[in-house]
Amino acid sequence: MKFFTQILKLKTKEELEFINITNQVIEILKQSKIQNGIVNIFSKHTTLSIEINEYEKLLLKDMDWFMKKLAPDQKNYFHDNIKMRENCPPDEPKNAKGHLRSLLMETFQIVPIMDYEMQLGQYQQIFAIETSGPREREIIIQIFGEGEENE
Amino acid sequence: MKFFTQILKLKTKEELEFINITNQVIEILKQSKIQNGIVNIFSKHTTLSIEINEYEKLLLKDMDWFMKKLAPDQKNYFHDNIKMRENCPPDEPKNAKGHLRSLLMETFQIVPIMDYEMQLGQYQQIFAIETSGPREREIIIQIFGEGEENE
Amino acid sequence: MKFFTQILKLKTKEELEFINITNQVIEILKQSKIQNGIVNIFSKHTTLSIEINEYEKLLLKDMDWFMKKLAPDQKNYFHDNIKMRENCPPDEPKNAKGHLRSLLMETFQIVPIMDYEMQLGQYQQIFAIETSGPREREIIIQIFGEGEENE
Repeated sequence: MKFFTQILKLKTKEELEFINITNQVIEILKQSKIQNGIVNIFSKHTTLSIEINEYEKLLLKDMDWFMKKLAPDQKNYFHDNIKMRENCPPDEPKNAKGHLRSLLMETFQIVPIMDYEMQLGQYQQIFAIETSGPREREIIIQIFGEGEENE
Repeated sequence: MKFFTQILKLKTKEELEFINITNQVIEILKQSKIQNGIVNIFSKHTTLSIEINEYEKLLLKDMDWFMKKLAPDQKNYFHDNIKMRENCPPDEPKNAKGHLRSLLMETFQIVPIMDYEMQLGQYQQIFAIETSGPREREIIIQIFGEGEENE
Repeated sequence: MKFFTQILKLKTKEELEFINITNQVIEILKQSKIQNGIVNIFSKHTTLSIEINEYEKLLLKDMDWFMKKLAPDQKNYFHDNIKMRENCPPDEPKNAKGHLRSLLMETFQIVPIMDYEMQLGQYQQIFAIETSGPREREIIIQIFGEGEENE
């Protein structure tokens, strides 16, 4: 049983942003030398989701529309009433909508590894979805399983 | 490879309720003595979801509003037409909305463990979300990975 | 540490379809002879989700209504404007709504195994949810953990 963990750092640019991190995960998997197992792609943030979907430019526009339809920008959310919150600094971002959008998505994805490769289907890409950016973000890439013996 | 499993029991109080179970999971992890691995927090119920998000009082009110907006209380759901269902006792709860809300959320969360600790970010808390309470509930806390040798 | 992986193939029949795959997963688990561990039920498709919920006929009708309410059939999605997409064959299916519905659901489910059995609760069934059918589909059933020594 081998473990290999690395932090993937991102600098997001927009409030709601869809970032393709598939190639970064592939690079880290190569370094791990793990042959059979799983990779856990785990966001360390409540407003940064991890998803698997097709990363197609026009589809990203639909996803953007969809998230804003479900949890609208223009609503008086309780969580955004900063004065009513306990121990809350006045410059706290008004990001209730980001929390709600992330509630519908996932904090992590787990992908099977066989023969040193993630078993993603043809159109499956791994996304980080920023829902309260821009921010500096960290994603744990935790890989474990069977690897080469002579290491 | 070590395995450690424990059942976490909850008594929920409301129909839709957000319960912070982070400390209970931390306690069980301590008992496991597992150093590197994962913890799988797995609900045994179709209307009890597990999520990771920020547990902030006012945000819980937004989440409550959000779930009721997406799957409204006041709708004639097919599943709630108890008479039309096969082999269904007449006192079956009318909980279609709970099933739909849970469909949008997760049955389990998997958190990386490093150096005996869950790698949750600063604001990440583990929630059990009751969507058809009040009920008695069970959550499997399954931990596995590398632990201390001398046990 | 034992690994056992098998591909579950499905032929879906409808555009939006809820398929109970619990028994197939149970059969594969039996073959694996793995006693303690996890099973990862992982869809290889961006428009085939995996969920755990109650598989009750009338509830499936509510789920169908719910998915169509959240991401409606009748909308001009950007992704469905095939001519505007790069390198896209003219017979590409117009399935933006399927991608959006799958964004709200999961690509995989991980179920704990104890004493050779999945630890599903009384009403928990494993679904494959087709969101852009009919199609031929593949689901990876990846099982790992501790098993019988003499194999």
